[in-house]
Amino acid sequence: MSLTEFELIARFFSGCGAARGDVELGVGDDAALLRVADGEVLVAAVDTLVEGVHFSADAPPASIGHRALAVNLSDLAAMGAHPAWALLALTVPIADERWLAEFARGLCALAGAHEVALVGGDTTRGPCCVTVQALGHLPPGSALRRSGARPGDALFLSGTTGDAAAGLLLRQGKLAASAADEGELRERFEFPTPRVALGEALRGHASACIDISDGLLGDAGKLAQASGCGVVISIEELPVSGALTRAVGAERARHLALTGGEDYELCFAVSPARVAELERALPSARWNYRRIGTVREAPGAIVTRGGTVMQFSHSGYDHFAA
Amino acid sequence: MSLTEFELIARFFSGCGAARGDVELGVGDDAALLRVADGEVLVAAVDTLVEGVHFSADAPPASIGHRALAVNLSDLAAMGAHPAWALLALTVPIADERWLAEFARGLCALAGAHEVALVGGDTTRGPCCVTVQALGHLPPGSALRRSGARPGDALFLSGTTGDAAAGLLLRQGKLAASAADEGELRERFEFPTPRVALGEALRGHASACIDISDGLLGDAGKLAQASGCGVVISIEELPVSGALTRAVGAERARHLALTGGEDYELCFAVSPARVAELERALPSARWNYRRIGTVREAPGAIVTRGGTVMQFSHSGYDHFAA
Repeated sequence: MSLTEFELIARFFSGCGAARGDVELGVGDDAALLRVADGEVLVAAVDTLVEGVHFSADAPPASIGHRALAVNLSDLAAMGAHPAWALLALTVPIADERWLAEFARGLCALAGAHEVALVGGDTTRGPCCVTVQALGHLPPGSALRRSGARPGDALFLSGTTGDAAAGLLLRQGKLAASAADEGELRERFEFPTPRVALGEALRGHASACIDISDGLLGDAGKLAQASGCGVVISIEELPVSGALTRAVGAERARHLALTGGEDYELCFAVSPARVAELERALPSARWNYRRIGTVREAPGAIVTRGGTVMQFSHSGYDHFAA
Repeated sequence: MSLTEFELIARFFSGCGAARGDVELGVGDDAALLRVADGEVLVAAVDTLVEGVHFSADAPPASIGHRALAVNLSDLAAMGAHPAWALLALTVPIADERWLAEFARGLCALAGAHEVALVGGDTTRGPCCVTVQALGHLPPGSALRRSGARPGDALFLSGTTGDAAAGLLLRQGKLAASAADEGELRERFEFPTPRVALGEALRGHASACIDISDGLLGDAGKLAQASGCGVVISIEELPVSGALTRAVGAERARHLALTGGEDYELCFAVSPARVAELERALPSARWNYRRIGTVREAPGAIVTRGGTVMQFSHSGYDHFAA
C-alpha cells in the first residue's frame, strides 16, 4: 500500500473515539503510552472479524467497524471491566475511501459512546480482516471470571438472545419479516450493544459472567465448565423478543434464543444469598435482565420445559423436540 | 472452525512464553487480567503480518510466529519499554497441526526469551493473517518518542541494515550467495532480533528513537519529521555486514542498508552533550551501535558521501548515483 493510501487511512482514524487524559501518546509513534490508575488491574481482549466468516463482502462497512469494537467491549463487559483504549489492525484489499469512511464512522461512534480512545493501529493490504484489541481496567479482586459459579447459584441473562441470528438470516434473505421487525432484528446483528454498564455494575454481585457470542446454551455451558459445574436453563423463563417471535414463531424463536450467536448479552451467576441484594442494587426491570435458570453440580448445560429435560440438538432447530 | 479444531489450536499456545506473576488471568476467559506496577506507564503496540504481503505461503511457519511477535517487541523497544504480555489473533484457512505446532514454536520461543507471557488470543478461519498486540511498561517520562530529536543531535544505528532485504531476495531465488552468507542473511529476515535490551538501556540517553521496519532512510526521515527536523546520514559511516557486501557488492550493499526493510534495528538520536555519557554507560562496541549521521534543521533525510549530498532514488538501486 502506498504511503498516500496509508495517510488516507490514518486520516479516517485520527481523533477516533474519546480524547482521554490518560493517553500520554496515541496513534503516530511506534507504540501508545497509557496511564493505568495505580492499583487498577489491566484487562485486555482481542477479537478478529474476517470477511466471509463474520461478515459478507457487501455488509455495511459502518456495521463492520461497530462490530469489530463491540465484540471486544463485550469481552471487557463480561469481566466487569471499564473500557478505556483500543488498538485496530485493519487489513483491506484496496484503500476504498467510501468504505473506509463508513467503517471508521461505525467504529469511532461506538468508541466515542463508551469514552474509548483509539490509541494505535496498523493498516495492511490483504484479504479484508479486522482485529481490535480493547484495553480496560477494574479494581483488584473485582473481575467477573467465568469460573466463579457454584451449585445453587441463580443464572441470569440480560436482554434477549436469538435476535442477531434472525437479523443475519433476514440479511441473507433466508427469512422474511415486517419492515419494523426486520429493522429491529437486523440492528441487533449489525449494531450489537455491548453491555458495558451492566458488566461494571455486576462487580460484587455476580459470581461468574460470560458474554453470549456463540449462542446462549454453548456459552452458558462454557461458564459452567470453567466453574466445574453445570447449568439448567428453564425454557419458560427464556426472554424472547416480540420481533423474533413474530418473525419465526414461538418455538423457533426459543431455539434461536438458545443457539443463535452474536447477541453480546451477558449471562451471569449470582449466589442465592445475594439475589435479593442484586435486585435492590440493580432492579431487573431497569437493567433489563432475567433469571433463566440455576447452576447445579452435574456438568453440562441442559434445558427444561415444565421441569422435564428437553432433547436438544445443536445441529438445527428441525431437531428441536418438546 | 469446529470446537475440536479450536481446542487443537489452544493446545499449541497453552503456557506459551513466560509464566509471570503479574498475570492474574491468562488465556481462557473473556479477557486477560494483568497487573501493571504502580506508577509505570503502559505501552501498547499492534502489528499484522499477512500472507502474500509479509510472508509467502511456503514461508517457514516458525519464522512467521517469530516475526509476528518480533515486529511488536521491536515497536516496544523503540519506545524504550520493557515487554511483558502479548495477545495473538490468528486467522488460518485450515487447522494444519504441523504448521500450527511450528508457528507456535517460533512465537513461544521468542516470547520465552523475553519473558513475555501470551495472555490471550482469538483464532478464526480465513486467509492466513497474524496480528499480535504486545504490551509493556516503562517509568513515567522515560519513553523514547520519535519527536524528541533536536538539530545538532548525533544519529546512531544499532547493528547493520540491509541484511533482511538480502535474506528475502535469497529466499525468493533473486540472489545467490555462499551457503554461510545465505544462512546468515536469511536468518536476519526470518528470525529478526528485536533490540529490546538496547531500547531499555537508551532511556535517559536518547532524545528520540524509531525501529527500522521500512528501511533506514525512510524511517530516519519519519523520526526527523516527527521532531520537526531533518537528518543527514553519512554513507561512509553506514554499517554494512560482510555477508551483505559479499552477496551484493559494496555499492548495492549500501543501497540495501539505506532502503531495505525488516531489519528491526534501532535508529536513535542523542544530544551532543550526552554522547560521551552514552559511550561510557553503553559502550558502542559492546552494545553494537554506531554513529551514522546528524540531526539538522532543514527537513528531509539526505545521504552524503565525502560531504557531498548524493542523488538518491527510493525506486531502486539502479538509480543509485555516487
